[in-house]
Amino acid sequence: MAELTHMIDSEVFLAFSTYATIVTLKMMLLSLLTAYFRLTKKVFANMEDTSLAHSTEDKKKMIRVDPDVERVRRCHQNDLENIVPFIVIGLLYALTGPDLATAVLHFRVFVVSRICHTVSYVLALPQPSRALSWVTGMFATFSMAYRVLSTALFL
Amino acid sequence: MAELTHMIDSEVFLAFSTYATIVTLKMMLLSLLTAYFRLTKKVFANMEDTSLAHSTEDKKKMIRVDPDVERVRRCHQNDLENIVPFIVIGLLYALTGPDLATAVLHFRVFVVSRICHTVSYVLALPQPSRALSWVTGMFATFSMAYRVLSTALFL
Amino acid sequence: MAELTHMIDSEVFLAFSTYATIVTLKMMLLSLLTAYFRLTKKVFANMEDTSLAHSTEDKKKMIRVDPDVERVRRCHQNDLENIVPFIVIGLLYALTGPDLATAVLHFRVFVVSRICHTVSYVLALPQPSRALSWVTGMFATFSMAYRVLSTALFL
Repeated sequence: MAELTHMIDSEVFLAFSTYATIVTLKMMLLSLLTAYFRLTKKVFANMEDTSLAHSTEDKKKMIRVDPDVERVRRCHQNDLENIVPFIVIGLLYALTGPDLATAVLHFRVFVVSRICHTVSYVLALPQPSRALSWVTGMFATFSMAYRVLSTALFL
Repeated sequence: MAELTHMIDSEVFLAFSTYATIVTLKMMLLSLLTAYFRLTKKVFANMEDTSLAHSTEDKKKMIRVDPDVERVRRCHQNDLENIVPFIVIGLLYALTGPDLATAVLHFRVFVVSRICHTVSYVLALPQPSRALSWVTGMFATFSMAYRVLSTALFL
Repeated sequence: MAELTHMIDSEVFLAFSTYATIVTLKMMLLSLLTAYFRLTKKVFANMEDTSLAHSTEDKKKMIRVDPDVERVRRCHQNDLENIVPFIVIGLLYALTGPDLATAVLHFRVFVVSRICHTVSYVLALPQPSRALSWVTGMFATFSMAYRVLSTALFL
């Protein structure tokens, strides 16, 4: 990490910026998908969200747990648990000045694996599609973390 | 992103730093609010947290789900799902060298929208106050993501 | 923050990079621990995960809530809620050019407190072990946030 200020101008950093933005937007789409399911299936978590209903009984019916909404929420949570580490470690990795081809390979593998993960989860595809895409993304992050710690360890 | 190293010294970066810190502190306050509700209402999620109770029966009563605690937790989760994308995309956006006034406008709109969101959620204000503040914040993040991808796309 | 580009080359930034990577890896281990408990205890959240079972009845039994899995999940959630603010504020703090010894002290206190928090949570150690480690980590983050806002406030 001797010349970090040069690294931040590099193509590796531009690639990180692009892939990090894409995978973050993908994660945000799950917020919209949750909202879509909540509105179309009329399933809410808060009493104040049920103002479209007329009677109190109808309102109470709208406060429930729906399997489709919960599925999207679990997918979203898994995204948070995996994309946050990718962003943190990927940013530090990009600053260690890795080879461009290697770096882009890591970013692509991660982003593609997370897109596969979302598709597998939301459509409930048979396993091990979801498990494999989860492990692949995690492996890409671990590989970058190894480079960060082996290049610049300062305890 | 030709001269990123200059950008990181800029007023845009200072503004990002300030607003990102403020909105992160706001998110952390929800942790404290959850703790406050758990302690004052004596609602816990773990058996080891109930040591203040004397009998085993009292302890079991403390392990329950409380609507106020759950409301704060949902608000906190929504913060995580929205503030994390803002931080990631906002940081990359600040490095693309945007116009200072435009950048500060984006940061302000986002931070104010999240403060409104928290107030609407915790006080259970009538809709669409919460929905509008959520959409406003998301729109600010999408707008910054558009600039990041259109300024520096490297796939 | 006058000379940020110098700061990013500094030992403070290297230290941040190291501690941020370690605490992020620690958080990722909780994903693996959840997966381990789900597989060994045969507790799943999705119907497609139960393909190892033969009868439909066995499959339905596998879809349940297990206290050990939920405990790890709560610990993971608490990590997300605390480590994300540390990374964001810690990165901005490292760029304010703090004294090396002070900065390393902050990073060490935070990382050690989160490791203690995880051990206390997963092993269900008696309180206040978990509460104290949670408060200690939060205090380290607040202290860094104070420095960020007092060094470089730009509203």
